[in-house]
Amino acid sequence: MFIINGELLSTINLTDRGLHYGDGLFETLEVVNGKPVFLQLHLERLCRDCQRLLIPAPTIQLLTHEIQLLCTHFVTGEQHHVLKILITRGVGGRGYRQPRVIEPTRIIGLYPMPIYNPDYQYYGVKTRWCQLRLGINPALAGIKHLNRLEQVLARAEWDGDDIQEGIMMNARDNVIEGTMSNLFYVTDNKLCTASLNGSGIAGIMRHLVLDEAVSQGLTVIVHDYCKQAVLTADEVFLTNSIIGIWPVKSIDTQVFAIGSVTRRLQALINTRKQAEYVAADF
Amino acid sequence: MFIINGELLSTINLTDRGLHYGDGLFETLEVVNGKPVFLQLHLERLCRDCQRLLIPAPTIQLLTHEIQLLCTHFVTGEQHHVLKILITRGVGGRGYRQPRVIEPTRIIGLYPMPIYNPDYQYYGVKTRWCQLRLGINPALAGIKHLNRLEQVLARAEWDGDDIQEGIMMNARDNVIEGTMSNLFYVTDNKLCTASLNGSGIAGIMRHLVLDEAVSQGLTVIVHDYCKQAVLTADEVFLTNSIIGIWPVKSIDTQVFAIGSVTRRLQALINTRKQAEYVAADF
Repeated sequence: MFIINGELLSTINLTDRGLHYGDGLFETLEVVNGKPVFLQLHLERLCRDCQRLLIPAPTIQLLTHEIQLLCTHFVTGEQHHVLKILITRGVGGRGYRQPRVIEPTRIIGLYPMPIYNPDYQYYGVKTRWCQLRLGINPALAGIKHLNRLEQVLARAEWDGDDIQEGIMMNARDNVIEGTMSNLFYVTDNKLCTASLNGSGIAGIMRHLVLDEAVSQGLTVIVHDYCKQAVLTADEVFLTNSIIGIWPVKSIDTQVFAIGSVTRRLQALINTRKQAEYVAADF
Repeated sequence: MFIINGELLSTINLTDRGLHYGDGLFETLEVVNGKPVFLQLHLERLCRDCQRLLIPAPTIQLLTHEIQLLCTHFVTGEQHHVLKILITRGVGGRGYRQPRVIEPTRIIGLYPMPIYNPDYQYYGVKTRWCQLRLGINPALAGIKHLNRLEQVLARAEWDGDDIQEGIMMNARDNVIEGTMSNLFYVTDNKLCTASLNGSGIAGIMRHLVLDEAVSQGLTVIVHDYCKQAVLTADEVFLTNSIIGIWPVKSIDTQVFAIGSVTRRLQALINTRKQAEYVAADF
């Protein structure tokens, strides 16, 4: 189910720059019983990153209104969905030069929630190292933009359901993130994650985890680190807005215990999600 | 005018992975009086690069048939057009994981030829250095894929019609190409261009120029080089399938003469294009 620029549609103009150049960005969030979780944070990031891509962002009011329409019309009863918000630079002629007047395309889509084994939250997931390296580009780093061939190719490195996520390094041998998640590790009670100055996506769940950790007085280190730092860590976990926090029980043959920091952060995020749900406007 | 999977359409399915992830690639070629120029070379590259992206390529026969349909139906009389062929991994659910069965989307579009000042061919073009650096990723280097935000942002660095192209370096300070063209320079009668092992698009016109140069016994160097090598060059020129060869008369304040190697290659490419046109099947 999709709304494009306020209209219920299932197709998009062929000249849209989202298709031709990946010229846009997106957000993915959980919808619980018709209520999008952490919506404000997602919309704020969307607008901030539109600025970085020189795309005039739609107003948060307009987006909220359209999301509300979609969620109230198409969600009935107790259901979980995934909401995807996609903004492109709009239709435009051939060529990289942007149109003189940019009229961005707003696409808001509601998807069924993927069915993940509930054990992943508790017992953790199996992961692997990806061969494919992320490129380095500070101008694009952090943004959840539509140029995602690296993730597609990394995700194509394995099949089957035994492995739940692949961990990616960048061209400088720094560990960055999973194909669809951010990665954290804990060493000596310090919570560490990649700085994302050159590669990677700065996820909303990553932001929330860092925020909770700092509030709890945990030492937080956001830095560039190599494979060895992860392999010798006490705990490793993955985050995104749909999965929340998944403990990592293994990366290839290296096994990890699920520790108290991971459990504490899972509990804190659950509480925060609950509060957000109760406070949500619609 | 677009044909999608053999049908005349102006919209595309909203769940196409081309839109969501830039998950595909494209070709751009000149059509002279309904005849696509160097079609075979473009289609061969398309199929080769589909393989690199793990997309099952349509057959060259099928693509040729559909291109022929479009060109014979919608080109009348003496006209120049641009043909764009775009292949995506097709429709698919949410998530980077590719569908179990991939049914690629074939989009073939006919555009009016952009009107470039004819002086550019003879007197050369003004260019500038771009601030934005190309990322480095050997897995994607050379491919004309749909992840083109770097080019879009680089092209947005200037406006107006005084500057015709921007020259891009990569994260290692190597000069790679223009935003929409490949770059060559000539020093001591040696023809040099970037290796494109980590960044850039390996254009068909670049291939043809290298081919002609080698046939003529010119010394050709394909290597990694820095800004200084270009600034001290005797001649500099740009290539792509639509513009052919444009001599560079300046990069920012640095002025270049238009030399005999550039002129010779322009003549050779024109002859080759003429022969290709006469030999074309349709």
